[in-house]
Amino acid sequence: MSGKKPFAIGVDLGATTIKAGVVDRKGKILEQARSDTMADKGPDAVLKQMIRTIRDLLSRRAQAGCLGIGIGSPGVVTPDGVVRYPPNFSQWKEVNVLKRLRKAFRLPIFIENDANAAAMGEAVHGVARKYKDFLFVIWGTGVGGGIILDRKIYRGPHGGAGEVGHVTIDYNGPLCNCGSRGCIESFIGQRYLSRRTREILESMPPGKPRSKISELVGGNLDEIEPSIISRAAEEGDLTAIAILQEAGELLGYALASALNILDLRIVVIGGGLSAAPDFVFTAVETGLRSRVLQSIKPGVRVLRSTLGNAAGIVGAASLVR
Amino acid sequence: MSGKKPFAIGVDLGATTIKAGVVDRKGKILEQARSDTMADKGPDAVLKQMIRTIRDLLSRRAQAGCLGIGIGSPGVVTPDGVVRYPPNFSQWKEVNVLKRLRKAFRLPIFIENDANAAAMGEAVHGVARKYKDFLFVIWGTGVGGGIILDRKIYRGPHGGAGEVGHVTIDYNGPLCNCGSRGCIESFIGQRYLSRRTREILESMPPGKPRSKISELVGGNLDEIEPSIISRAAEEGDLTAIAILQEAGELLGYALASALNILDLRIVVIGGGLSAAPDFVFTAVETGLRSRVLQSIKPGVRVLRSTLGNAAGIVGAASLVR
Repeated sequence: MSGKKPFAIGVDLGATTIKAGVVDRKGKILEQARSDTMADKGPDAVLKQMIRTIRDLLSRRAQAGCLGIGIGSPGVVTPDGVVRYPPNFSQWKEVNVLKRLRKAFRLPIFIENDANAAAMGEAVHGVARKYKDFLFVIWGTGVGGGIILDRKIYRGPHGGAGEVGHVTIDYNGPLCNCGSRGCIESFIGQRYLSRRTREILESMPPGKPRSKISELVGGNLDEIEPSIISRAAEEGDLTAIAILQEAGELLGYALASALNILDLRIVVIGGGLSAAPDFVFTAVETGLRSRVLQSIKPGVRVLRSTLGNAAGIVGAASLVR
Repeated sequence: MSGKKPFAIGVDLGATTIKAGVVDRKGKILEQARSDTMADKGPDAVLKQMIRTIRDLLSRRAQAGCLGIGIGSPGVVTPDGVVRYPPNFSQWKEVNVLKRLRKAFRLPIFIENDANAAAMGEAVHGVARKYKDFLFVIWGTGVGGGIILDRKIYRGPHGGAGEVGHVTIDYNGPLCNCGSRGCIESFIGQRYLSRRTREILESMPPGKPRSKISELVGGNLDEIEPSIISRAAEEGDLTAIAILQEAGELLGYALASALNILDLRIVVIGGGLSAAPDFVFTAVETGLRSRVLQSIKPGVRVLRSTLGNAAGIVGAASLVR
């Protein structure tokens, strides 16, 4: 019965796990499959794992209903389907994933950078459904993004557009992984945020009451991560609130540069930090409004992604249209 | 004879002067006309002046050869030809210039923001002819820009795209005219550059030999402007060289954020500062390369506009195609 409804397959290619799902036209995940990426075994092993995972899903459904396969991949994805240098994939330089998958499946196949796929997921099934143009930001381990213009992904001439994490907010700022200085990622990426929190806690005078953050990690400050900071903030911890408030405002400053260049108004925030308390989103919006050009200011909106953990699979499936 | 060759009319609407020209298909200006903008008299007066200037040019040529009229205007220009709040035009809120001109001329008419028109001029007749995608920067009184994607102007959803002057390089930096802080314009716009130079000269110990800059303005530091600094630099003045070198690198930092977002490689610099010595362009490129993502780095090129003073008219005429 259910096998007769049209569906798409969405594949979220992660560095450790391949997550795939059967997604209906409303963006609901009907079936799921996952497997080890085997990124350390090289491109052939990864491709085999992907193909096997997709076959597994297809075997559970009437294949006639499958509209196509969408893939969200790390790294730069060129318009002809070549995945270039995905981080944490060993021996992987440039591989034409599209070509390889077309040999395995007689179905329409679409592949995009994972941030772009997630952005498309927001456009088709998420909180940005009613907006034609917006900036999607993934705030988690790093800070990434995707640009949707006129309901389509803006890939840039070489497929690498949307790197809002590498917008500088202070040219004398901290060294970033990318080699530059003061990129917003170097201020608010997971690692930096955790380290900054640790430093603040360690510098507190011993007489003061312990922060909720310290309690939540049982005193082991190595275990601080953004979800812990978020939880402490929700429980009213002032240090946690101050840190996330500042991070949100700084993100707003970086996004202001992006909005001024692109003439956009709407920002959707996904990734791990999209689970942060409301005040963080307010802080991003406040930071943005204080910095964008007058003509942009009235229209600025910062929205929380509603797709949550499903964003990877649903975003990939949304490429099939 | 010459009247039989096809031509376009380009109109450069400035806050003080309207400059217009008959431009052939190779981007050569064959005839010119100019008139007072009368921006203080309100939109109707300005429109009358524009129409009169265009009629003047048309009267000198066989109208049959005219392919159309292109206009570069300050302010945000919407896709349907409304010019919104051009700076230094009094009583001007939102005026549909396209509609008004269509009543006056039975010719195809095109209107764009002046920076976008100049960008198009570079794409069609200037140094960027062989590039499909590039960022155009006007560096003069302020810092503006235009984005060319796939040989077309990227206007953004509301017509305001390309504001690279309001990319922040230091969120604690100087207050900018736009109300934000640390925009690149607040570091290297004409006024700021002149003031910074003045401050450096005034802080020099009296024993040291006088800077060439001081000589060129006859000791009146109020008269410092970028062309003076450029001239002093060309004559080997170390203060002038240091100031322009720093300004170029800072511009490179701001442009790196823009290139990372847009996935572009090529930058064309126009405006008054496009007459600066070569080392300034090298400094912009050095600043850029030190900050862009690895994938972008090898392709980065910073080019000097070759249209010079003709950029406004030729750019506007290039809109007619």
